[in-house]
Amino acid sequence: MAQIISINDNQRLQLEPLEVPSRLLLGPGPSNAHPSVLQAMNVSPVGHLDPAFLALMDEIQSLLRYVWQTENPLTIAVSGTGTAAMEATIANAVEPGDVVLIGVAGYFGNRLVDMAGRYGADVRTISKPWGEVFSLEELRTALETHRPAILALVHAETSTGARQPLEGVGELCREFGTLLLVDTVTSLGGVPIFLDAWGVDLAYSCSQKGLGCSPGASPFTMSSRAIEKLQRRRTKVANWYLDMNLLGKYWGSERVYHHTAPINLYYALREALRLIAQEGLANCWQRHQKNVEYLWERLEDIGLSLHVEKEYRLPTLTTVCIPDGVDGKAVARRLLNEHNIEVGGGLGELAGKVWRVGLMGFNSRKESVDQLIPALEQVLR
Amino acid sequence: MAQIISINDNQRLQLEPLEVPSRLLLGPGPSNAHPSVLQAMNVSPVGHLDPAFLALMDEIQSLLRYVWQTENPLTIAVSGTGTAAMEATIANAVEPGDVVLIGVAGYFGNRLVDMAGRYGADVRTISKPWGEVFSLEELRTALETHRPAILALVHAETSTGARQPLEGVGELCREFGTLLLVDTVTSLGGVPIFLDAWGVDLAYSCSQKGLGCSPGASPFTMSSRAIEKLQRRRTKVANWYLDMNLLGKYWGSERVYHHTAPINLYYALREALRLIAQEGLANCWQRHQKNVEYLWERLEDIGLSLHVEKEYRLPTLTTVCIPDGVDGKAVARRLLNEHNIEVGGGLGELAGKVWRVGLMGFNSRKESVDQLIPALEQVLR
Repeated sequence: MAQIISINDNQRLQLEPLEVPSRLLLGPGPSNAHPSVLQAMNVSPVGHLDPAFLALMDEIQSLLRYVWQTENPLTIAVSGTGTAAMEATIANAVEPGDVVLIGVAGYFGNRLVDMAGRYGADVRTISKPWGEVFSLEELRTALETHRPAILALVHAETSTGARQPLEGVGELCREFGTLLLVDTVTSLGGVPIFLDAWGVDLAYSCSQKGLGCSPGASPFTMSSRAIEKLQRRRTKVANWYLDMNLLGKYWGSERVYHHTAPINLYYALREALRLIAQEGLANCWQRHQKNVEYLWERLEDIGLSLHVEKEYRLPTLTTVCIPDGVDGKAVARRLLNEHNIEVGGGLGELAGKVWRVGLMGFNSRKESVDQLIPALEQVLR
Repeated sequence: MAQIISINDNQRLQLEPLEVPSRLLLGPGPSNAHPSVLQAMNVSPVGHLDPAFLALMDEIQSLLRYVWQTENPLTIAVSGTGTAAMEATIANAVEPGDVVLIGVAGYFGNRLVDMAGRYGADVRTISKPWGEVFSLEELRTALETHRPAILALVHAETSTGARQPLEGVGELCREFGTLLLVDTVTSLGGVPIFLDAWGVDLAYSCSQKGLGCSPGASPFTMSSRAIEKLQRRRTKVANWYLDMNLLGKYWGSERVYHHTAPINLYYALREALRLIAQEGLANCWQRHQKNVEYLWERLEDIGLSLHVEKEYRLPTLTTVCIPDGVDGKAVARRLLNEHNIEVGGGLGELAGKVWRVGLMGFNSRKESVDQLIPALEQVLR
C-alpha cells in the first residue's frame, strides 16, 4: 500500500558537503578538541558489544577514575551531554519526598533546582550572589536547618567562573547522613579535584571542556554510599535511559545490552583521556593554572577587570567585566565574525555584565591568549 | 589546600593510540557509517549557539522531515541514542494516570512498557508472538477495550525483524481520540514511512541504522495534536534533558540555550541526511528492498530459513533461524573473530533461535551479502 502515496519533496534540501568556519572556542564550552581526538572519531565504528569496544569501555572507566581521583567502581560515561549526566545523578539519587539542599550561586545551581523538583524532591536552597561561594560555616548551618538526604553543590559555576571549595564538605555531610553531589562540568581535567579525599558521593561532568574532547559522552560517578541509597529505593528510577541499575550491568561484568553507545564519541573520549594520562594530571592542572594567570594579567593590561575574587577564580573559565558603555554582545559578535574567536556572554544575573572566557583542555595554551588579547583590544578600540 | 593531597596513579593507564578492528557490521545496528559521514566528524567543532551551527540545525530539521515524510515543525535530533529519543516521546506525551496501550511483539515493545510505567502511565498491553504483527481489527478491539490516551506501536521490531503495517492505524486512533506513537528505529531511511499520511503523532528513531550515520544523535518528531497535549499538561515533563518545552526553544526561533549539543555528531547526521536527499528517498528504500531480497535468496540457497513471514519482513533487518544442533553464539563469534563480520543474536523469546542480520544505510549493498554468505557457509560447514 505504501507505494501509492507519493513522496513529498518539500523538505528535500539539496546541500553541499559541510563547511563550517574554523573557530577558536574561548567561550564556556565547547572548546576545540585536540586534533588527535577528532582523528579518533574518523574511524569506522565497531558494535557496542564487540569485545574490542568492551575493552575500550574499561579503559574509559579507569581513566575517568584517574582524572576524578576516585576508586568508585561505578564510574562511566553517560551517552549524552553534561546535562544528561547531571540528570543521571539526580534521577538515581533522589526518591520522591527526599529533602535535597542545593547551593545556588549561578545558573547551574538553578538548573539543579528545576531538575530535582521534577524527580519529586523536597527542594531547599541556599543562595549567594553570582560569583561568590559558600563557606563551611554557612553549609553547616544549612545542613542543621534542613537535614537533607542530599547536598548538591557546583564545584565550578560555568555561569560565574567561581570555584566552590570542597575541602571539609564531605566530612560535614557525613555528620548529617547526607550524600554530597557535585557538579564538576567546568572543573574536571582543569581544576584540582580529589573526589574520594573530599568525600564526594555523586559527580558528573562533560567531555568538551577540561578533557579536550568533543561533546556528547559525559562522565558520571557514584560512591558505594550512593549505591546503597539506590539499592534501598522503593520506587524505580524515574528515567530509563539513565537508570544506573541498568547501565551498571552494561558497564560492569554482566555486559547486558542497554542502549547503543555513541561509539565514535567513546573513541574520542578514550583518546582525550589517554592524552591527559600521558601528560599527567598534576601537569595538566598546572598548565591550566599557568595559562589562566597569563590571561588575567593580559586582560588587566588592557584595562579590563575580573568579576570573581582571585582566590575563588576558576583556572578554566574567567568572567570579565564588560566596561561601562560597551555593548558586550556586539563585541562578542565582532570577535566571532572578524576574528573567528568565540567568547561567551553572561547568563541570568550576569547577563550584559560579563564575558565568559574559557581556557580549557587543548585550548589552555599561551597561543590562545595571544590570539584573543589583540583581537579584543582591536574590537574595543 | 588541594596541593597537599597527593595524586593517586592507580588508574592512570598508559595506553597506545586507539586501534580497533575493521568490522563489517551486519547486526541489528550500529551499521558502518558512510566514509564521508565519518569524515564530517573529523572537523573542529563550533559553538552550539554559533550562527553556522544554528543553520546546520535547521538543515537537519528539514531533512529529518523529508526522510520521515512529515511537515511537523517540532522535528529535531535528540542528543542521545535511540533509547533517549524513545524516552523523549514517552516523557513528553505521558502524564501520570494516562492510559497507554502498547503493542508488544518483541523486545522493544517491552522496553516501552517499562518506560511508560516509570512516567506514571496506566499501561495496558496487547501481545503477539515475536515475529508477528497486529491487524487493524485487533487494534480496533483493543482501542475499544482500553480507550487509551496513547497507542504505541513498533513499526520495525529490531528484535524480530517484523514490520508492523501502519496504514489505517492513525485514522483508527482519531476515532478514539488517541495519539499514535511509533518506534521507527529500524525503519527510518530503509523502509517506506509516511508519518503524516499515516497520522502518526509521535515518532523516534536512531542515526546508526537506515540513516547510515554514527550513533548518538536521534530523530524525534511530534505532531500538532501531540503538542496540544503537551501544552495542556498539569505537571512538568518529568525529564529535564528531554523536555520539548525547553528543547523546542533551542531548535525553534528563540534559540534559548538548553544543553551543549554533540556538535560533531550533528555534523555527521547532516552529512548522512544530505546523502539520502541526494540519492532520493524512493531510491534509498528500493535499494534496501533489492539488497535484502538478494540476501534472503542467498540465505535460502545455503539452506537457511527465515523467521518472519515474507509479507512482513523488514528490508533492514532479517531474522535467520538457527538450524537445529547449531550453536548460534559460537557461529556469531567465529564470524566476528575469523571474518570481521558482526551479526546479532536473538533477544528474549528468540534468544538462541535466530541470528539477526542487518543491511542498513551504507551497508545495504550487494557486496555486504557477498561477503557474508561465503563466510557464513564456511563457519557452518
